[in-house]
Amino acid sequence: MTEGTDSATDDRTGVWLVGARGNVATMSIVGARAIARGVTETTGMVTEREPVASLELPPIDGFVFAGHDIEPEPLVAQAERQRDRNGVPDDETLAAVRDDLAAIDDRIEVGTAVNCGAAVSEGSEYLDERLAVRDVVEQIRDDYETFRDHHDLERLVVVNVASTEPELAAPERYDSRDALERAIDDDDRELPASVLYAYAAIDAGHPFVNFTPSTANALGGLEELAAATGVPHMGRDAKTGETLVKSALAPMFAGRNLRVLSWEGHNILGNKDGLVLEDEENAAGKLASKGDVLDSILPDIEHNRVRIDYTPSLADWKTAWDYIHFEGFLETEMKMQFTWEGSDSALAAPLVLDLVRLIAHADDHGDGGLQPQLASFFKAPLGVDEHDFSQQLERLYAYADRHA
Amino acid sequence: MTEGTDSATDDRTGVWLVGARGNVATMSIVGARAIARGVTETTGMVTEREPVASLELPPIDGFVFAGHDIEPEPLVAQAERQRDRNGVPDDETLAAVRDDLAAIDDRIEVGTAVNCGAAVSEGSEYLDERLAVRDVVEQIRDDYETFRDHHDLERLVVVNVASTEPELAAPERYDSRDALERAIDDDDRELPASVLYAYAAIDAGHPFVNFTPSTANALGGLEELAAATGVPHMGRDAKTGETLVKSALAPMFAGRNLRVLSWEGHNILGNKDGLVLEDEENAAGKLASKGDVLDSILPDIEHNRVRIDYTPSLADWKTAWDYIHFEGFLETEMKMQFTWEGSDSALAAPLVLDLVRLIAHADDHGDGGLQPQLASFFKAPLGVDEHDFSQQLERLYAYADRHA
Amino acid sequence: MTEGTDSATDDRTGVWLVGARGNVATMSIVGARAIARGVTETTGMVTEREPVASLELPPIDGFVFAGHDIEPEPLVAQAERQRDRNGVPDDETLAAVRDDLAAIDDRIEVGTAVNCGAAVSEGSEYLDERLAVRDVVEQIRDDYETFRDHHDLERLVVVNVASTEPELAAPERYDSRDALERAIDDDDRELPASVLYAYAAIDAGHPFVNFTPSTANALGGLEELAAATGVPHMGRDAKTGETLVKSALAPMFAGRNLRVLSWEGHNILGNKDGLVLEDEENAAGKLASKGDVLDSILPDIEHNRVRIDYTPSLADWKTAWDYIHFEGFLETEMKMQFTWEGSDSALAAPLVLDLVRLIAHADDHGDGGLQPQLASFFKAPLGVDEHDFSQQLERLYAYADRHA
Amino acid sequence: MTEGTDSATDDRTGVWLVGARGNVATMSIVGARAIARGVTETTGMVTEREPVASLELPPIDGFVFAGHDIEPEPLVAQAERQRDRNGVPDDETLAAVRDDLAAIDDRIEVGTAVNCGAAVSEGSEYLDERLAVRDVVEQIRDDYETFRDHHDLERLVVVNVASTEPELAAPERYDSRDALERAIDDDDRELPASVLYAYAAIDAGHPFVNFTPSTANALGGLEELAAATGVPHMGRDAKTGETLVKSALAPMFAGRNLRVLSWEGHNILGNKDGLVLEDEENAAGKLASKGDVLDSILPDIEHNRVRIDYTPSLADWKTAWDYIHFEGFLETEMKMQFTWEGSDSALAAPLVLDLVRLIAHADDHGDGGLQPQLASFFKAPLGVDEHDFSQQLERLYAYADRHA
Ligand SMILES: NC(=O)c1ccc[n+]([C@@H]2O[C@H](COP(=O)([O-])OP(=O)(O)OC[C@H]3O[C@@H](n4cnc5c(N)ncnc54)[C@H](O)[C@@H]3O)[C@@H](O)[C@H]2O)c1
Ligand SMILES: NC(=O)c1ccc[n+]([C@@H]2O[C@H](COP(=O)([O-])OP(=O)(O)OC[C@H]3O[C@@H](n4cnc5c(N)ncnc54)[C@H](O)[C@@H]3O)[C@@H](O)[C@H]2O)c1
Ligand SMILES: NC(=O)c1ccc[n+]([C@@H]2O[C@H](COP(=O)([O-])OP(=O)(O)OC[C@H]3O[C@@H](n4cnc5c(N)ncnc54)[C@H](O)[C@@H]3O)[C@@H](O)[C@H]2O)c1
Ligand SMILES: NC(=O)c1ccc[n+]([C@@H]2O[C@H](COP(=O)([O-])OP(=O)(O)OC[C@H]3O[C@@H](n4cnc5c(N)ncnc54)[C@H](O)[C@@H]3O)[C@@H](O)[C@H]2O)c1
Ligand code: NA
Ligand code: NA
Repeated sequence: MTEGTDSATDDRTGVWLVGARGNVATMSIVGARAIARGVTETTGMVTEREPVASLELPPIDGFVFAGHDIEPEPLVAQAERQRDRNGVPDDETLAAVRDDLAAIDDRIEVGTAVNCGAAVSEGSEYLDERLAVRDVVEQIRDDYETFRDHHDLERLVVVNVASTEPELAAPERYDSRDALERAIDDDDRELPASVLYAYAAIDAGHPFVNFTPSTANALGGLEELAAATGVPHMGRDAKTGETLVKSALAPMFAGRNLRVLSWEGHNILGNKDGLVLEDEENAAGKLASKGDVLDSILPDIEHNRVRIDYTPSLADWKTAWDYIHFEGFLETEMKMQFTWEGSDSALAAPLVLDLVRLIAHADDHGDGGLQPQLASFFKAPLGVDEHDFSQQLERLYAYADRHA
Repeated sequence: MTEGTDSATDDRTGVWLVGARGNVATMSIVGARAIARGVTETTGMVTEREPVASLELPPIDGFVFAGHDIEPEPLVAQAERQRDRNGVPDDETLAAVRDDLAAIDDRIEVGTAVNCGAAVSEGSEYLDERLAVRDVVEQIRDDYETFRDHHDLERLVVVNVASTEPELAAPERYDSRDALERAIDDDDRELPASVLYAYAAIDAGHPFVNFTPSTANALGGLEELAAATGVPHMGRDAKTGETLVKSALAPMFAGRNLRVLSWEGHNILGNKDGLVLEDEENAAGKLASKGDVLDSILPDIEHNRVRIDYTPSLADWKTAWDYIHFEGFLETEMKMQFTWEGSDSALAAPLVLDLVRLIAHADDHGDGGLQPQLASFFKAPLGVDEHDFSQQLERLYAYADRHA
Repeated sequence: MTEGTDSATDDRTGVWLVGARGNVATMSIVGARAIARGVTETTGMVTEREPVASLELPPIDGFVFAGHDIEPEPLVAQAERQRDRNGVPDDETLAAVRDDLAAIDDRIEVGTAVNCGAAVSEGSEYLDERLAVRDVVEQIRDDYETFRDHHDLERLVVVNVASTEPELAAPERYDSRDALERAIDDDDRELPASVLYAYAAIDAGHPFVNFTPSTANALGGLEELAAATGVPHMGRDAKTGETLVKSALAPMFAGRNLRVLSWEGHNILGNKDGLVLEDEENAAGKLASKGDVLDSILPDIEHNRVRIDYTPSLADWKTAWDYIHFEGFLETEMKMQFTWEGSDSALAAPLVLDLVRLIAHADDHGDGGLQPQLASFFKAPLGVDEHDFSQQLERLYAYADRHA
Repeated sequence: MTEGTDSATDDRTGVWLVGARGNVATMSIVGARAIARGVTETTGMVTEREPVASLELPPIDGFVFAGHDIEPEPLVAQAERQRDRNGVPDDETLAAVRDDLAAIDDRIEVGTAVNCGAAVSEGSEYLDERLAVRDVVEQIRDDYETFRDHHDLERLVVVNVASTEPELAAPERYDSRDALERAIDDDDRELPASVLYAYAAIDAGHPFVNFTPSTANALGGLEELAAATGVPHMGRDAKTGETLVKSALAPMFAGRNLRVLSWEGHNILGNKDGLVLEDEENAAGKLASKGDVLDSILPDIEHNRVRIDYTPSLADWKTAWDYIHFEGFLETEMKMQFTWEGSDSALAAPLVLDLVRLIAHADDHGDGGLQPQLASFFKAPLGVDEHDFSQQLERLYAYADRHA
């Protein structure tokens, strides 16, 4: 079975990954193809578990991958490095999908690196910086369309899994569709790459997911556009590790009326994401979305700090230590600590596949705009104030029940 | 303000504690009186937080305490030991409630120790073992009524906070009211103390809560009686520490379709409860209710063990280490660990007060039988299959909304 | 380079492993051959680090392996299982030594299973139980000699890495050489296999190391024999994980005059050693040698417990949680906790190689009897009271300096 | 028994604390007086344990305290805050020494704050900044002498327990006695307070201990002076918590030839020391002395980071999480983690008392200059390369044996 072309299914979904040669992208592609080829299970995929599994969702073996990147090293080499450094994927799995990776790699186009920060763009290959913003958008859009046309796809979903960008200053200046489109036409050099990818996707009618803390579709102007044109989109920053645990655990303290005095979170990791986050500029957005979860669930929290440090030997194994100092009855001070040791991209990849399926489902059912039923997937779910993981899941289950 | 008699409030609730000189009881009484006297806050009480706080609940300063015990050492001495060994309550709080404790201690009657296990009854004072079961029940009932009559109470709630008993064999033989009452009349010597306390309460129309893993009201015969007579009752085994965390955390693994390979839980504690649980007989019930939570939330869990060990120097500071080995996407094995360091009785006490208020509320509103809206308080909630803490809380909140 | 026969070196050391198809043995053989073939480094070997590295020690590539076992599954299959379950050795390493393993496996003889406990002998193949003890000893000795003669060895070292046996009752009855030899001649059916292996080795003049908690050479009678005949021997129970950490950390509390109130150690592991230790009989000796370390370093310790539990999913990854509750100045109570996650056999294997080299060195220099300079390798070093790891290492370094 | 004046002993030692109203100072004074009054034990004091206890050391009940500070809030208030925030000292102990604290507080003089950093000097009271350096030195010296003369002391020991200063740039410019004294005479405004206190002490012949990471006596010029005049002195930065553990544990990895890939140390604390260390300038020296220990014991370590964060709710309870990623045999990666929860000043205080006694002992025996036998007490022991705690202790024990 060749990926994309002669799969068992006719229901073919184009999956365009921005950052297609990164860890998350590579693991998503490896996983999807390994599932298609029957060499791995679907553990970790929310859409493979009831009640969500009852939805009529696009099949994984119908996923056809492509994308943008600014890193020339091919997918196969990326996957080999992940195997060597992290032990995931294992030899057998990699062997089973190696040819698929090579074929997909041919479909990865050079992207734009505008305003991604030096930590990201240094030593990369990207579209000429002197290109006008509007031309960049057109080029990206053209890449999407060419792919869609050449592969006879039912639909095309765009997912941003590129490196975290520095925070965009004063995003409210792009709060209307008009303002945003004017900025593009006026060649506004402050718009970051993620916004251009998102704009090109939504404007062309492709569902869009922002898996990262970058700005992308988190602009009033893009929300307006998506609402007007009925394109489903969602984000921001997938919730895969320490923050996921926080969103499950903090409600317990709230629900029992225990007062959290301090919640310290210390993350160490050694992959490229970790290296980029060493740069304070790029880290700012990540820290913000991680921190908000607790502040929202525990409005009276007295002290809440998150640190992310780069520890090369850990490679993709993100390790977190959280220390929770809380007060209970009779002013008694107590403590809870946890450590989390997860393979970052193995946690992220199944969610990429889930999100593609679920946003495609919304598109198929004519649900445009933000998708609050997907809040459980994100650290900073757009348009949703609820951060309690359990409550967020309830929304997804209610959606599933409604559509079952 | 003297406890009970001349409090600001006329809404006086009798709180009869079985095991009234134990850690949990002592801390509950100290806490309630400290609240009444304005020297502590209500942190840790679920009924003091929205949406539950909106219910019309009996006031804490109207609580009038009394109870049974088989331990002669007075409440003040118990509280002093807790202060010295655990640092809770602190000097100031104890000073503020010392006279209240002395007054309450005078209202503690000698209870029955039938079938509590040698670990509990050794060296204690209890009702003559040769008394007929029916006479024991009458004596207990008489204690309840005398207290009620002498203190001009709106209502009387009975809460079992006595030591964990050995498991009752073949409880199904008491599955009907008839069978149970016949056993009492036939002087069945296998009925344990907790059942007699529960029977006496429910039969006399007093709401009953079983805070412990002992059998008490967890018999078909008592459920039938309570349903028939419209008496609210609930149990079993309050969820205060490691199991609480499990019930908040396990749903996260389930919700993300992560496969838990092993969940090891190791508890160490040094109070009398820990000492009693050193006895394998008495530990059996506790381990069962602790283990069930995971098996219910994670039906595919491969290995689930709980250990409770006695570590004298820790006194009331229950410390737990949990190690969770799980598998995610692409068969990747990952790990989470946590340690929990909580003052066992400071975690339990506010829930005793909450439960008294909430079961009284049900009684006031004519809701008899089991109270599923109270499931979040228990490790093994009677009549409820849901163990997800967040879902259980939702039921409580829905109840609060209904009655607000 | 074929193992043993045509190696670069002429200095050939026979390494006879009792339990030659177990985890520790397999990893030791894989490691030695991988070193010989230049595909791995010597990290973890004490003899490859100064000052010990300066000693003139038998070369690893001159090691010729053989041994006894009662498990028929061949070495290659054992190594493959270790790779699959633990990720160690990795594919490449295994490929490089696969032929060596096959050749060595042909030299593994069937051993005796007398008094090893049902947990060990069930389902195994072993010497006829009806053989007289003396005949068993002769058979074992014959196996040693045949191997030695056929492979043109400089020397033969015997190392016991077989499963832990149940504790031998009243070992003092074998306190003299006479008593022991009389027991063998009188067909005493209570002598366990490890003693027979040790006796056969020492009596034939082969240096002997007991890597396990079993009795083996820890008998007065064998000490007398070894001293009289000038054969070096040492043991008991290699110190590789949690106990190693204890022996490094406990001296810190002692040295600072901090009072340890409780030291809880909870070990979980999922390999065959763990399964055997599930059997309380077999666990007794292990728990004893683990517990003694703390009692010796911290004579005033108030509470010291070690637990070993079997957690299948962990395979060879022994995980320990230690909780240390201690008191400092002004009666202040403080806490330290650690978790240790080590590959049990990867920690043990390099020490097997070290011990072979070092006991051979003692033999070459005419040092017979117990070898206190090797105390740092053992949980219960025979003839040595010192348990402080640092002090034990000093003895090894002093030995190295003396012989350099 | 009044402190100092009419104690049971005639052997009276003046203890001059620079930073006499800080946490460490307060706890040292409380502890010494509580010992003198028989209300606490000497747990945590190295000089109360063999073999050091055999030395003839100045008695604790002969200690007469005084000192400098720039903080006006009196000792009793400091001690009360420590009790309220940390639970140490407890009520009873504080009551027993309250009068002693008040008396000692009267002997605390205003010190100099030159070059202590804004984080320290802001809001304090200190000697006029316009005073010439030489005049400051004279003032300090005069304070020492007046105290000595008024209290009929056998000896006077000066200990610096003041806040950590910013690092002194280019300390080598003060590498000779001449250069240093010339700088003082030339009114060099870059010399920090700690150097002036140290110079005044050593020049006047008083043994000096630097308990902090500040420069103080760690200047070539002061070493020359002390050697020439035969005054014993030692430092730098007492080793009380995480670094102590490191110095006990790292040698284990070294001794077993295990390769440490990463050692992450994350400290959180909430006392004033923590607040001062929030200031990057003041933190620099602390981080340096903490980091050096590992680099020295594990020269091949690949990654070694220490973080110190301010977490107010923890008060004096310094909590550290250390994560150690290491490689063993066959390139197997393993992990160890620990958490440490210690009362910072309760760990420090007994060492202050030990150091006073031991440096006085050196003085009494005519041992001037640096005191390498005291290396185990310091993170960065002056003049000593050995960081292995066990080896450092051996030097102290050898000293004790020599003088016993
Ligand atoms: N568990 C997780 O791994 C996880 C969870 C939540 C969010 N995220 C986010 O997902 C993103 C990807 O993480 P990763 O670990 O795969 O990082 P990565 O560094 O391995 O991959 C990022 C890829 O994006 C490419 N890229 C960067 N800028 C680009 C641009 N402007 N256009 C096209 N390609 C570009 C890079 O070349 C690289 O190949 C990060 O923002 C990360 O914060 C990851
Ligand atoms: N966090 C918690 O502390 C917690 C949580 C859940 C459940 N529980 C349960 O609550 C119960 C009480 O815990 P504790 O820590 O207070 O224990 P405890 O041992 O301090 O107190 C138990 C008291 O019950 C008394 N008692 C025993 N048998 C009795 C009998 N037959 N009649 C009357 N009195 C009797 C004892 O004398 C003692 O005073 C235990 O069953 C425990 O498992 C406690
Ligand atoms: N880190 C470590 O792995 C470590 C550390 C200290 C001690 N040890 C000890 O080393 C021993 C081996 O550990 P393992 O993990 O390799 O166990 P294992 O169960 O994998 O291997 C033991 C082997 O011994 C064989 N055996 C059992 N009884 C025998 C007998 N009477 N004669 C010959 N062979 C026999 C078994 O068949 C098996 O192949 C155990 O006693 C263990 O406690 C191991
Ligand atoms: N475990 C420990 O507590 C520990 C361990 C090692 C080192 N130390 C070091 O000991 C020192 C004291 O720690 P602490 O917790 O007591 O801090 P602290 O802030 O509680 O006390 C420091 C005291 O020094 C005073 N001070 C500051 N500058 C001064 C000056 N120039 N002259 C006179 N007084 C001055 C302050 O006013 C304060 O009273 C710090 O440098 C700390 O790093 C402490
Ligand atoms: Na691996
Ligand atoms: Na306290």
